[in-house]
Amino acid sequence: MNFRERVDEIIRRKNSLLCVGLDSDIGKMPEIIRSSENPLYTFNKTIIDATIDFAAAFKVNLAFYEVYGELGWRALKDTFNYLPDSVIRIADAKRGDIGNTARMYARALFDGLGADAVTVNPYMGFDAAEPFLQDEEKGTFFLCLTSNPGAKDFQHFSNGTKCLYERIAETVKKWNVRANCGLVVGATRPNELATIRNIAPDVPFLIPGIGAQGGDLVASVQSGTDSQGSLALFNSSRAIIYASQDDVFAAARDAARQTRQQLNQARQDNC
Amino acid sequence: MNFRERVDEIIRRKNSLLCVGLDSDIGKMPEIIRSSENPLYTFNKTIIDATIDFAAAFKVNLAFYEVYGELGWRALKDTFNYLPDSVIRIADAKRGDIGNTARMYARALFDGLGADAVTVNPYMGFDAAEPFLQDEEKGTFFLCLTSNPGAKDFQHFSNGTKCLYERIAETVKKWNVRANCGLVVGATRPNELATIRNIAPDVPFLIPGIGAQGGDLVASVQSGTDSQGSLALFNSSRAIIYASQDDVFAAARDAARQTRQQLNQARQDNC
Repeated sequence: MNFRERVDEIIRRKNSLLCVGLDSDIGKMPEIIRSSENPLYTFNKTIIDATIDFAAAFKVNLAFYEVYGELGWRALKDTFNYLPDSVIRIADAKRGDIGNTARMYARALFDGLGADAVTVNPYMGFDAAEPFLQDEEKGTFFLCLTSNPGAKDFQHFSNGTKCLYERIAETVKKWNVRANCGLVVGATRPNELATIRNIAPDVPFLIPGIGAQGGDLVASVQSGTDSQGSLALFNSSRAIIYASQDDVFAAARDAARQTRQQLNQARQDNC
Repeated sequence: MNFRERVDEIIRRKNSLLCVGLDSDIGKMPEIIRSSENPLYTFNKTIIDATIDFAAAFKVNLAFYEVYGELGWRALKDTFNYLPDSVIRIADAKRGDIGNTARMYARALFDGLGADAVTVNPYMGFDAAEPFLQDEEKGTFFLCLTSNPGAKDFQHFSNGTKCLYERIAETVKKWNVRANCGLVVGATRPNELATIRNIAPDVPFLIPGIGAQGGDLVASVQSGTDSQGSLALFNSSRAIIYASQDDVFAAARDAARQTRQQLNQARQDNC
């Protein structure tokens, strides 16, 4: 089964477009977890247990682990080991480097951590992308149009007829010979999301920005899903994992349940 | 002392434009090192001892360490601890993410590892760059025009009057209020290197590609240094660290000595 089929299959089986983002920050955890032996993993395990019924994917943001050095890397590995095959396990690493280095990053993330999918920065072009695309089962989401204010600095650079982010979407579509490419497109820009969906109708999208970043959920679902209301994973991190300091489990579970429901409601309204 | 002054001062004091790239791959090490307890660190220590007299900077390529997980991260940290203040210590990580994530990456690399400088991918724009630019002593080399074949895929995307890589050089110049920004420009493209040096006359350049990648050393020195023959660090990795399987120390020392000499000769020819 190639990556696109797998994303579609899991979205259908779990009836969910939700990706839970594990941007786990020890400073924001309740005291009882913060003082445990391996707080990052303890916290992630709690969040995974609380939200697994409602999530199609989990995305681990590597920066939040690298900041703790070896301990962080151990927590990353434990977290990936704990995540079941029934979800897409995404290493949000945004790597990108020349061929011989990219091969090392691909090994570190796919083989070392056991990720099903990674995020990659396409700026260095095809030979920096190719090492990630060897296995049809492993997905690579290329940064296309991101959810942050700085996205306008270079991603909107235009040749008069199209912007760089459109060129990237077109190019990634050409790289997609094994049906294992995806695109990262921010929920903060529903109009451009629709443009990119038109360029790449059957490529999975990873869509950050619906929670704390304030993107428009309904418009993003309607623009970002494919013609079947599938192939889009909407990431929410802070709004789910820090929903409460008192009862992390119950609050994360409620937030994940509600977010899945909102996403599914937006899908139905579109049909 | 801001980062630009520091780069200039070290290049003058060591009379060297050489950056030694620690792309250390256990599979390419001699058996005696490969079988040691901490082969990555043992190898790096050998290379550092052999080349420190001739190098202004050392650049550690994170992919080669992440592939070994926790052990790799430990070797990274040991290597940075071992490198003296008399050189620029560069973490070649090519990170780049939204503000709250970029802050974590900056902490992981500058504080966690103790890097003096990092490489950052500018694709996500200013708010992804800003967290790296808070301390005037810490340098950030932004990817501009890279040395690999795929550089043409997006970096040459043009608005009719200029290419994306030129737009990036102009923008980084604006971000450079603390004189701590740099640019990564490949030695495989001496003409474009001259164009970028014209745009940013007083920004330090990190220039990969003179060794195994086959860039033209003389042309790159003449195009890439500033008007004083300074502010450019030329990285060579494989041609120095794998110069021999028999006597790593002596071969790396010879290769570093010769490369420094070639770089200095090219500077003099330019004056």
